[in-house]
Amino acid sequence: MTDLILTHVESGVRVIRINRPDKKNALIGEMYQALAEAFEGGEADSETGVFLLRGSETDFTAGNDLPDFLTWDKLSGSVADRFIRAVAGAKKPVVAAVRGAAMGVGATILPHCDLVYAAPGTKFLTPFINLGIVPEAASSQTLPALAGHRKAAEMLLLGEPFGVETALAIGLINAVVPGEELEAFALAQAAKLATKPRATLLMIKQLMKTPAEPVMDRLTREALVFDACLKRPELKEAVAAFAEKRPPDFSKCR
Amino acid sequence: MTDLILTHVESGVRVIRINRPDKKNALIGEMYQALAEAFEGGEADSETGVFLLRGSETDFTAGNDLPDFLTWDKLSGSVADRFIRAVAGAKKPVVAAVRGAAMGVGATILPHCDLVYAAPGTKFLTPFINLGIVPEAASSQTLPALAGHRKAAEMLLLGEPFGVETALAIGLINAVVPGEELEAFALAQAAKLATKPRATLLMIKQLMKTPAEPVMDRLTREALVFDACLKRPELKEAVAAFAEKRPPDFSKCR
Amino acid sequence: MTDLILTHVESGVRVIRINRPDKKNALIGEMYQALAEAFEGGEADSETGVFLLRGSETDFTAGNDLPDFLTWDKLSGSVADRFIRAVAGAKKPVVAAVRGAAMGVGATILPHCDLVYAAPGTKFLTPFINLGIVPEAASSQTLPALAGHRKAAEMLLLGEPFGVETALAIGLINAVVPGEELEAFALAQAAKLATKPRATLLMIKQLMKTPAEPVMDRLTREALVFDACLKRPELKEAVAAFAEKRPPDFSKCR
Repeated sequence: MTDLILTHVESGVRVIRINRPDKKNALIGEMYQALAEAFEGGEADSETGVFLLRGSETDFTAGNDLPDFLTWDKLSGSVADRFIRAVAGAKKPVVAAVRGAAMGVGATILPHCDLVYAAPGTKFLTPFINLGIVPEAASSQTLPALAGHRKAAEMLLLGEPFGVETALAIGLINAVVPGEELEAFALAQAAKLATKPRATLLMIKQLMKTPAEPVMDRLTREALVFDACLKRPELKEAVAAFAEKRPPDFSKCR
Repeated sequence: MTDLILTHVESGVRVIRINRPDKKNALIGEMYQALAEAFEGGEADSETGVFLLRGSETDFTAGNDLPDFLTWDKLSGSVADRFIRAVAGAKKPVVAAVRGAAMGVGATILPHCDLVYAAPGTKFLTPFINLGIVPEAASSQTLPALAGHRKAAEMLLLGEPFGVETALAIGLINAVVPGEELEAFALAQAAKLATKPRATLLMIKQLMKTPAEPVMDRLTREALVFDACLKRPELKEAVAAFAEKRPPDFSKCR
Repeated sequence: MTDLILTHVESGVRVIRINRPDKKNALIGEMYQALAEAFEGGEADSETGVFLLRGSETDFTAGNDLPDFLTWDKLSGSVADRFIRAVAGAKKPVVAAVRGAAMGVGATILPHCDLVYAAPGTKFLTPFINLGIVPEAASSQTLPALAGHRKAAEMLLLGEPFGVETALAIGLINAVVPGEELEAFALAQAAKLATKPRATLLMIKQLMKTPAEPVMDRLTREALVFDACLKRPELKEAVAAFAEKRPPDFSKCR
């Protein structure tokens, strides 16, 4: 067990905190492993409805510890790879709160999160080209898809840093939140997700994450899931609550 | 025949009006069927060059009538499904004018339209998660593609409403048009499309709607259609008109 | 040899200049051929690290010479097709500097470039519909992907011109640069790319240009290339330079 990654559950949210503040939360092997285990464990834990990934008071993470890279043999099959796949494949929603340094995998992990909030002044950087390595976490695909190839080329071919304005414009983050409210706001948003009907939430996330397909195929896919929903109790509860002018209670629909 | 959907043709445009204003144009079975028939009929009608889908003076549509949902057995194969497929598969261009409520399928149908204009104050909402059902009309794919996954998550996982600023920023609508001019402007744009060389218009729309493929394959696909155009009369007419400094007349090129 | 296309190499950048200013750089057969040869030759030339495509003092290019279109038999397999494929398939980065007219293929070639800078007042136009022909250079795919279907429909179904604000908003260009600095700035950016570790640069561009695939597949693909990078000298040089607080020198890593 490492104390460089801290986790706890509150309000249905598994909070995962990167905690190596004296090194700008730069990641080393034991941290990737603890992160992977926190996500994998949360997927299996019925108390966890949603994940919140956050950093320390000053930084999200500066990415992989730089000298540590020289000790790497492979990315394939490494604990870093396992962490990335745990987030990219998470069935439960992932919220992230970022500030300070959001570099390397600290930037490239964000396209796999469902909601991302950033403090003013957050410095995003994908410096791979300047290190003689290639982008990871599928960022060679996710950043061009979000920003267009040319804007992504500034990030990935020139290795230029960018700020919250660009991150917001390309849809990498949902909103800029004042630093003193950031983690509390992100937790509140995560808790809001945790009150949604959970089975439905997971079905919707899965549909959203399904790779693009011809529109008629997507219509068929969605309709089959929709048909299954019509046999479940959530819709009845929602319509009854609407008629009775009360908030719906989906807690018994799991 | 229902009078809840009204249709007529003018200036080459088949105007399809949703007309249940006392219920915010909420949709029920006979309306889906009439909408589907209006689109299917227009595809087969040589007087129809373009579709214009609009609502009443106050609302586009609040989406499916809520209590009516409890009577549904399936979405698959329903009249709602038939309507969605008629719009998503329309070979002729579809213009939409939206105002007031653009909710449920009233929002999710828009990514299948070619031009969309909205009045200030239009309220877009994809409330599926809060009803315990999943998004339809391929919106689990179209909204993330347009807005990025995180912005789409606000719409589909949180079920938050959004306004014309967001709709414009993500490209769901083309422009915000003052309410008193909305339907007239949308009709004028549709009529403008109807003056374009029709065969070419349909070829271009079909290419635009073809699912993404490797770039070299798309080059080959486009070039074959381009080659066919070179044997048609439209290009000669356009070059002659340009040389003679007159507007081209494509009416005889159909 | 034509003097309608001028090329030279400086600072590792092959500058390719379209030079028919009295015709707004409208393209004819010998120009497409010279352009294709300039790109194909640069790919094979070790002195060339990056391409810069630019126009004359007043215009990038008005696209294909209009009367010349009537002499065309086919786009498929033509010199125009060869030029488009040379740019779309370039392994080395392509920078473009555009001003004045950026019409027809002068607009549709840009989504295949890695960095694009435009002077204020640049007029972008994809007028195919008004000529009775269909879009080329894969623009029926690239423009909807960049701008969303509805904004792209203004360009491709209505044939409306657009300016630098729209081009910037949809990510067709990276930045608007004052006209008197445009080509010098674009050259400086290209030269900056040329100082990057070249093998890495080409690997990253290739990953970015790989068609979208399921995320887990992309993770696997990137990781294999990443693993290969770990065996190369660039990363060691970068880490050493960082430790020694000096700029890295990748010139010996080719």
